Amino acid sequence: MSTSKTTVPFSRDSLDQVLKRRFFFAPAFEIYGGVSGLYDYGPPGCAFQANVIDTWRKHFILEEDMLEVDCTMLTPHEVLKTSGHVDKFADWMCKDLKTGEIFRADHLVEEVLESRLKGDKEARGIAAEVKEEDEDKKKRKKKVKEIKAVKLPDSEVAEYENILAQIDGFSGPQLGELITKYNITNPSTGGPLELPVEFNLMFETAIGPSGQLKGYLRPETAQGQFLNFNKLLEFNNEKMPFASASIGKSFRNEISPRAGLLRVREFLMAEIEHFVDPDDKSHAKFDVVKDVKLKFLPKDVQEAGQTELIEKTIGEAVASGMVDNKTLGYFIARIYQFLIKIGVDSNRLRFRQHMSNEMAHYAADCWDAELQTSYGWVECVGCADRSAYDLSVHAARTNEKLIVRQPLPEPVTVEKYEIDIAKKKFGPKFRKDAGAVEKWLLARTQCELEDLAKELADSGKITFKVDAIPEQIELDTDFVKIAKVTRTEHIREYTPNVIEPSFGIGRIIYSIFEHQFWARPEDEARSVLSLPPLVAPTKVLLVPLSSNPELQPVVKKVSAVLKKELIPFKIDDSSASIGKRYARNDELGTPFGITIDFESVKDNSITLRERDSTKQVRGSIEDIVRAIKEITYEDSTWSEGTAKLTPFETQSTE
Amino acid sequence: MSTSKTTVPFSRDSLDQVLKRRFFFAPAFEIYGGVSGLYDYGPPGCAFQANVIDTWRKHFILEEDMLEVDCTMLTPHEVLKTSGHVDKFADWMCKDLKTGEIFRADHLVEEVLESRLKGDKEARGIAAEVKEEDEDKKKRKKKVKEIKAVKLPDSEVAEYENILAQIDGFSGPQLGELITKYNITNPSTGGPLELPVEFNLMFETAIGPSGQLKGYLRPETAQGQFLNFNKLLEFNNEKMPFASASIGKSFRNEISPRAGLLRVREFLMAEIEHFVDPDDKSHAKFDVVKDVKLKFLPKDVQEAGQTELIEKTIGEAVASGMVDNKTLGYFIARIYQFLIKIGVDSNRLRFRQHMSNEMAHYAADCWDAELQTSYGWVECVGCADRSAYDLSVHAARTNEKLIVRQPLPEPVTVEKYEIDIAKKKFGPKFRKDAGAVEKWLLARTQCELEDLAKELADSGKITFKVDAIPEQIELDTDFVKIAKVTRTEHIREYTPNVIEPSFGIGRIIYSIFEHQFWARPEDEARSVLSLPPLVAPTKVLLVPLSSNPELQPVVKKVSAVLKKELIPFKIDDSSASIGKRYARNDELGTPFGITIDFESVKDNSITLRERDSTKQVRGSIEDIVRAIKEITYEDSTWSEGTAKLTPFETQSTE
Repeated sequence: MSTSKTTVPFSRDSLDQVLKRRFFFAPAFEIYGGVSGLYDYGPPGCAFQANVIDTWRKHFILEEDMLEVDCTMLTPHEVLKTSGHVDKFADWMCKDLKTGEIFRADHLVEEVLESRLKGDKEARGIAAEVKEEDEDKKKRKKKVKEIKAVKLPDSEVAEYENILAQIDGFSGPQLGELITKYNITNPSTGGPLELPVEFNLMFETAIGPSGQLKGYLRPETAQGQFLNFNKLLEFNNEKMPFASASIGKSFRNEISPRAGLLRVREFLMAEIEHFVDPDDKSHAKFDVVKDVKLKFLPKDVQEAGQTELIEKTIGEAVASGMVDNKTLGYFIARIYQFLIKIGVDSNRLRFRQHMSNEMAHYAADCWDAELQTSYGWVECVGCADRSAYDLSVHAARTNEKLIVRQPLPEPVTVEKYEIDIAKKKFGPKFRKDAGAVEKWLLARTQCELEDLAKELADSGKITFKVDAIPEQIELDTDFVKIAKVTRTEHIREYTPNVIEPSFGIGRIIYSIFEHQFWARPEDEARSVLSLPPLVAPTKVLLVPLSSNPELQPVVKKVSAVLKKELIPFKIDDSSASIGKRYARNDELGTPFGITIDFESVKDNSITLRERDSTKQVRGSIEDIVRAIKEITYEDSTWSEGTAKLTPFETQSTE
Repeated sequence: MSTSKTTVPFSRDSLDQVLKRRFFFAPAFEIYGGVSGLYDYGPPGCAFQANVIDTWRKHFILEEDMLEVDCTMLTPHEVLKTSGHVDKFADWMCKDLKTGEIFRADHLVEEVLESRLKGDKEARGIAAEVKEEDEDKKKRKKKVKEIKAVKLPDSEVAEYENILAQIDGFSGPQLGELITKYNITNPSTGGPLELPVEFNLMFETAIGPSGQLKGYLRPETAQGQFLNFNKLLEFNNEKMPFASASIGKSFRNEISPRAGLLRVREFLMAEIEHFVDPDDKSHAKFDVVKDVKLKFLPKDVQEAGQTELIEKTIGEAVASGMVDNKTLGYFIARIYQFLIKIGVDSNRLRFRQHMSNEMAHYAADCWDAELQTSYGWVECVGCADRSAYDLSVHAARTNEKLIVRQPLPEPVTVEKYEIDIAKKKFGPKFRKDAGAVEKWLLARTQCELEDLAKELADSGKITFKVDAIPEQIELDTDFVKIAKVTRTEHIREYTPNVIEPSFGIGRIIYSIFEHQFWARPEDEARSVLSLPPLVAPTKVLLVPLSSNPELQPVVKKVSAVLKKELIPFKIDDSSASIGKRYARNDELGTPFGITIDFESVKDNSITLRERDSTKQVRGSIEDIVRAIKEITYEDSTWSEGTAKLTPFETQSTE
């Protein structure tokens, strides 16, 4: 960002006003009083979002030949029970029994401790050090309304800082302990709070007229991709590795959303599931990105209560073992490149590693791309190595194999347990359940077979439960035999591991608004949204100098050329001054303006204005449109794209 | 469609097999046993859908400069109560109390009467007349499993035919009467059914942690557009007429979905709300479409129990008053053009007008674009003139004005009721409710003010209820005065009418599959999906003649050119024969194949194959790719696009 852009301090209020005035977004159901956590995108927000998605599709799906799918949002209970969401997709909430208020526990602890630290600084007379960001936080967070200048013991300051550095890693009971230990109460009344209880964040509904099939709105798009694994692998001609991808809405019933577009109950996600051989997590294109330099916040730094960033290349990060493997590293670098392309400020982007107590037990490694905003650092993209967890749990629950079968380069001799089923006896014994029992037995892992073999040898029978069959099942050696045998195998079977880059599009969009919003130093009321041309909602504003009908043929001609080149544009032939018309479009993030004047009628020349610098050049309609096309879609800079055009400075229109 | 395409009779079974084998779509949660009415789109289905949406966006949104918005699916109860969905968005269902089976009443009546008519024909020995379509129906509909050859009285045959022609127009009690009168029972058991009861089709959920805010998944995208009307009008610089548009998922909790992709519980919609002056429903571009010829099924024909189509131009249809107005007519013609562009067979497309008893009381006129499939004629696009209904009900409920204010060309003198409020007294009397009471009073229509004026004059006070205030409100002349006054007005205020074209994308997609699926007469096992190049999932299959590494440089070169031109392609370098590789891609709807052989290595020439005709031409890489681009994106035919290339027939690869 050039110096001029940061001369005027950032104001979230101004940004919010611009975004609402220009209808980038608005609270949903506003004329009904609104519903917190639900927002509608107006025309410029919707177009910006569509362009971000289009760029995402090209950057990831087309570039890597991913298999895009579109799966349903309605999801039956059983699927999300298996995935772990029914039990674990929850936040901890504290109730104030007296007022009925409900707080999200981790946010409450964070805010109260932060406000006490701030009060401590004031009391120590170091208030001047308080950052602008904190000023802004005070405004947003209505829970803690007043900062009291109270000095804390030095040891407590250190404890608070340590807790805040790890705030994402605490369990509900741990949060309860902190609330008790530090006497955290309802910030507005000082009244006591109940201990944290879990609240599942999924929206529940009933599918079908009988109301008996319980379902949820999906909390992520991933499960649909996992469940279709076999079909995807077949579609890919059984080739590994490969990735599927999905773009669509997901839902979280947030406890108390109040951070605008950053914490919403319905949001657009773009998710990739890259399926990879667990024994080979290299990536064919890793070398292409290995020199990309990134800022990391690894787990050991956080666990030491620190926050300073480590800058190194992704090649170094993988080589040192800090990032677990090359495929994970490849995606981290590609995420970085995507974010920069659509307008993220690289100075306000870091990759934070999940701490051990924060990461799911099955995950091999996990990094979040976090963007710095006036709300602090915000998780916008997750990139996790989920190992074989997802495919394994669904396979175990459904007894369907979700595996890859690969011819071995040469046969190998293995010792393994094999199960031998007396199929003919199953029908008479189990009737309609025969198939399910067989399927269950055949789906057992080597480990489980070893246990069953022992049970069969010891007691002459095995007993087990099959889902959907109420009774315990008992089989003796007449029905089943399990033995360790030596086999020559030509095929290797394995459950792929999954690397999952997962994008919260709305959060990225809001962060870009903050990163690219500034006010012109010569007039602070004139703000600009410097969205990159590639993703800007509209690329060109067409401005006839006056409403004189003589100019109309040129307006039509320019429109026709822009339409033919598929460049989105708007005409503003209102009676407002040219300066006012441009000012409006600076707020809309429109990167280019074309002025049509009386010279244009004579010689078909027009003026092109660049939004950020307000520089202007003059040229023929064809040359100007070519320059716009090159800068917008072909990666040229303004200087490159306009090198052959004439600078135009005589007639300032600002 | 050429004759060769219809030589082999259409088979829905073959189509279903191809669509599933090639993963166009699959039942969602299949490894969990599936959930009826929920489907996932695999890679080719997802790409086809994305291309249809892209074409829709260009054909409607860009062409007409519509304002696209993206509103939430979660919708609070109050909004859908006002819109009428809570009370009326329902189907009628009949329960068999003995077996617990649930039937959708209108579908049940339709199927039972149809099967009786068929049995009657068999009994009369005219079974030969039975159409192929009916054969297919028998297979699908599992409710009526057996057709009994029973002759009906002639009068009853006539009654049945008359009922079936109007089947979409019956209310629940009317369906109940039919069930009783014609003794319709559970088709599988013959057991009695309960009378039809209403079942609301919205999925219900609770928003927020307290569970107190009841909400639904939206049944359509329209409400979000209506609620944002004021913001959209402002964004459009107050200019009328204008349209908003939205693309997104909607939900219907179908009673018993079993028509595959045609009746699903979660579906993609694309909806336009065109806001227009009720006194002027002309359309600036009507003349552009006036000569488009369409097939109509108007209401009077249906009400007479008939089904023959009337063919005329949209210009004639509007002039004769059959279609209510030019804006409605314009959109009907544009819908036709869109559907043809993406692959609908014009011979299997009709516009059916809603009958009087079928249409909402407020609607001025309504036409459905129906596509003929093996399931019969299917409603795929609705196009309704909804008058001022939606904006009026939301304005009345929220007391927010949703109107247009337009300067009058010259001032007019009007007599009107005006209300005068003693604001100062409202605060003390109503406290926090003062604003709501004022707002309610100011939102009254002229008609309502006339009544209130009378009440005030007669009794010296008015009493009324304001939503969200529990008590009845009473005001006397100290608080409010209402009088008829004469004013000179410079501004006209009106509530716009809404013309609403509403597209069910999934139904359109499935109908196109049926319209474009055929088998090669020379080998019925080889089926082809003739998707238009513009919307086909992949445009080109790249086929090296053999796996000889010598061919690789040419494959790379062609890939690079296709990538640069953004033409989606796939490489198939498997060891299958060229014929097999093309056969697979015929099923995927890939319109072009490029063969790379040893000549290519020498002179850079390649062969281009067209899917439907299997014609081939030869030329340089650049010329071939240019031909593909022209045919796919620039409306050229095969003959036009390949005019300069050399026919290639010596070496048959089929």
